[in-house]
Amino acid sequence: MKAPSTKIEPPRLGEPYLLTPGPLTTSFAVKEAMLRDWGSWDDDFRAMTQDMRTRLLSLLGDGADDFDCVPMQGSGSFAVEAMLGTFIPKDGKALVLANGAYGLRSAKTMEYLGREHVVLDKGDYLPPRGQEVAQILADDSAITHVVAIHCETSSGILNPVEEISEATYAAGRKLLVDSMSAFGAIPLEVSKVRYEAMVSSANKCIEGVPGFGFVIARKSELEASKGNCHSLSLDVHAQWDNMEKTGQWRFTPPTHVVAAFLEALRGHEAEGGVAGRGARYTNNRDVMVAGMRDLGFETLLKDRWLSPIIVTFFCPADPNFEFSRFYGLMKDRGFIIYPGKLTVVDSFRVGCIGQMDAEVMRQVVTAAKETLAEMGVASAAPPAAALEERAKLAA
Amino acid sequence: MKAPSTKIEPPRLGEPYLLTPGPLTTSFAVKEAMLRDWGSWDDDFRAMTQDMRTRLLSLLGDGADDFDCVPMQGSGSFAVEAMLGTFIPKDGKALVLANGAYGLRSAKTMEYLGREHVVLDKGDYLPPRGQEVAQILADDSAITHVVAIHCETSSGILNPVEEISEATYAAGRKLLVDSMSAFGAIPLEVSKVRYEAMVSSANKCIEGVPGFGFVIARKSELEASKGNCHSLSLDVHAQWDNMEKTGQWRFTPPTHVVAAFLEALRGHEAEGGVAGRGARYTNNRDVMVAGMRDLGFETLLKDRWLSPIIVTFFCPADPNFEFSRFYGLMKDRGFIIYPGKLTVVDSFRVGCIGQMDAEVMRQVVTAAKETLAEMGVASAAPPAAALEERAKLAA
Repeated sequence: MKAPSTKIEPPRLGEPYLLTPGPLTTSFAVKEAMLRDWGSWDDDFRAMTQDMRTRLLSLLGDGADDFDCVPMQGSGSFAVEAMLGTFIPKDGKALVLANGAYGLRSAKTMEYLGREHVVLDKGDYLPPRGQEVAQILADDSAITHVVAIHCETSSGILNPVEEISEATYAAGRKLLVDSMSAFGAIPLEVSKVRYEAMVSSANKCIEGVPGFGFVIARKSELEASKGNCHSLSLDVHAQWDNMEKTGQWRFTPPTHVVAAFLEALRGHEAEGGVAGRGARYTNNRDVMVAGMRDLGFETLLKDRWLSPIIVTFFCPADPNFEFSRFYGLMKDRGFIIYPGKLTVVDSFRVGCIGQMDAEVMRQVVTAAKETLAEMGVASAAPPAAALEERAKLAA
Repeated sequence: MKAPSTKIEPPRLGEPYLLTPGPLTTSFAVKEAMLRDWGSWDDDFRAMTQDMRTRLLSLLGDGADDFDCVPMQGSGSFAVEAMLGTFIPKDGKALVLANGAYGLRSAKTMEYLGREHVVLDKGDYLPPRGQEVAQILADDSAITHVVAIHCETSSGILNPVEEISEATYAAGRKLLVDSMSAFGAIPLEVSKVRYEAMVSSANKCIEGVPGFGFVIARKSELEASKGNCHSLSLDVHAQWDNMEKTGQWRFTPPTHVVAAFLEALRGHEAEGGVAGRGARYTNNRDVMVAGMRDLGFETLLKDRWLSPIIVTFFCPADPNFEFSRFYGLMKDRGFIIYPGKLTVVDSFRVGCIGQMDAEVMRQVVTAAKETLAEMGVASAAPPAAALEERAKLAA
């Protein structure tokens, strides 16, 4: 098997770059790995599953031996639901930290499960802080688990999981992390941030294609979780138990997507693992944000809170700016961007993840410049309301 | 876009044929459709989703207008759980008809959901009959839904869904069908078999790759199902509602797998739809079964009950026969077969579905003949206990 190339190439079939939080632009080699069929019961595929689990665990750094990796069919949200349903017992109570769609989705999942929970809802993007968590835990001894979003892609904010973890364990509670869009590019080493379980998916920073997620959990938690889950399909304990005994997924795995993900993991390793991947994304963001700011765009977040995953920009105040037209013209130029999710002011998002480098990000900025000109937008400056909104969050 | 070829070609990368109930051998064109990336939010992908839903509904024949198609991420079992959780209300009660692993899995799902159910367990392969269903429904007025497996691949039996449906509706109850491994090759036209919902997946008779399933349900049932589901991810109503409003899946879809499935649907249509696909599989089965019987192998089921999906053979009584060796030597010859699931006697299974034709099936028989010779198995005849077992099921 030849070593994976770390060279970034444009999409070979000419499709637009995906400047989104995933699915994202993957390498051709990743997609090529899907050109054969595997039997899910066969030893060859079992070995692929084991290789994948081992490689993912290695990203945890020192202490990874205490953890195991359990892949789960479905989208990332299926894996989040699997984690919540498996590790928060029926008589447990969760504190869900929300500052965007994904935190709120975890809260909604807890509602479906009919399990006790409270939500700290910080609105569109304000970060939940360690001292707030400490206060809530001090006031409510019934809370057993804290659920945190690592990078909340609704705004692109990188939440302070370290201080959240410290507050959680100082109060003797347990932390579950939704690291969907961060894992693989932003460190989450178990020797540095304590948690019981985390979840991510194939089509994020490892740069695979979508089709499954994975839960990485402390083995002691996996062992203790039997009988907790509300769903046969989403039972992480049952999936883990079966995989340990037989090497197989309980139900049909997305074999081609797994093969693509293994190739993606090899590419991730060749790029220098979490550090290498994170460095490229950080540079992508820095080049793109600098270029967009030169055009007059403003980011929602001040630099301290910007993730290297996706960035929210305010829509320009200029009446000639209309997002759907901007989207279409950017797509015509080869770039698919993403709508915003802010409830207070209009915004859009530009992703920094996937098979893209600084050169691609410069092309994005050029495309944005040309598009503004074509739309007759003289200034990309946001409305005053946007800047007032932003002032709520200290640097 | 060029019309899909209906010519069967050997796996282009030289991998073994998958004579399994899925994942199965797909065409190269299906896999090639995965060589580009799509944005899940983008109009291009929304159009693909809509095209897929429309094509699947067209397989229902006259009366399809009363139904809608809701794709669901995950394996087929995820879609089954989604159907059960969404359409059987919390105060409903199910009669689950089981004659193998998949019926029992539906019963286990109902246990996870904590919803009332009774199981008619016919053992390894005996079919649940209409008059048995009628009797149980007559005796238990609390039962609201009957859950039937169309083709139970544990044995390969084609269950009599028509008489089950008649008994169900004669008693004023509702039928849910797990047609996982049958849909697309065995007719399930709504004008001929009455049911409220059915489920299948991408990697079965339509010949896509694994990664999602789909629920096809009567619109009136979809409308009435709000609030039933135990799971956010698996809520068919919520997925349907969102898809109708936005054209999007609620959570990240397996974009590449969907693209492959669309290509598979085009190939299915080019082959003559359900009738054409079913005719090829039936011929595959007839050629393979005749050849295996010539070698001395015996099928578990008499001809009336054999599905064109997968066939169970008894393991030979000859002490030189050992399944794992047989499996390995068949794989060396380019054919991955499947272990049996009978609890009483040893067996194995050979699938008839996927990109294979009569010529491939003849090669399978030849490979089996050579393998027996290599193993020193003089006779493929099963033990007497196997034939006694088989005598339980009338022709």
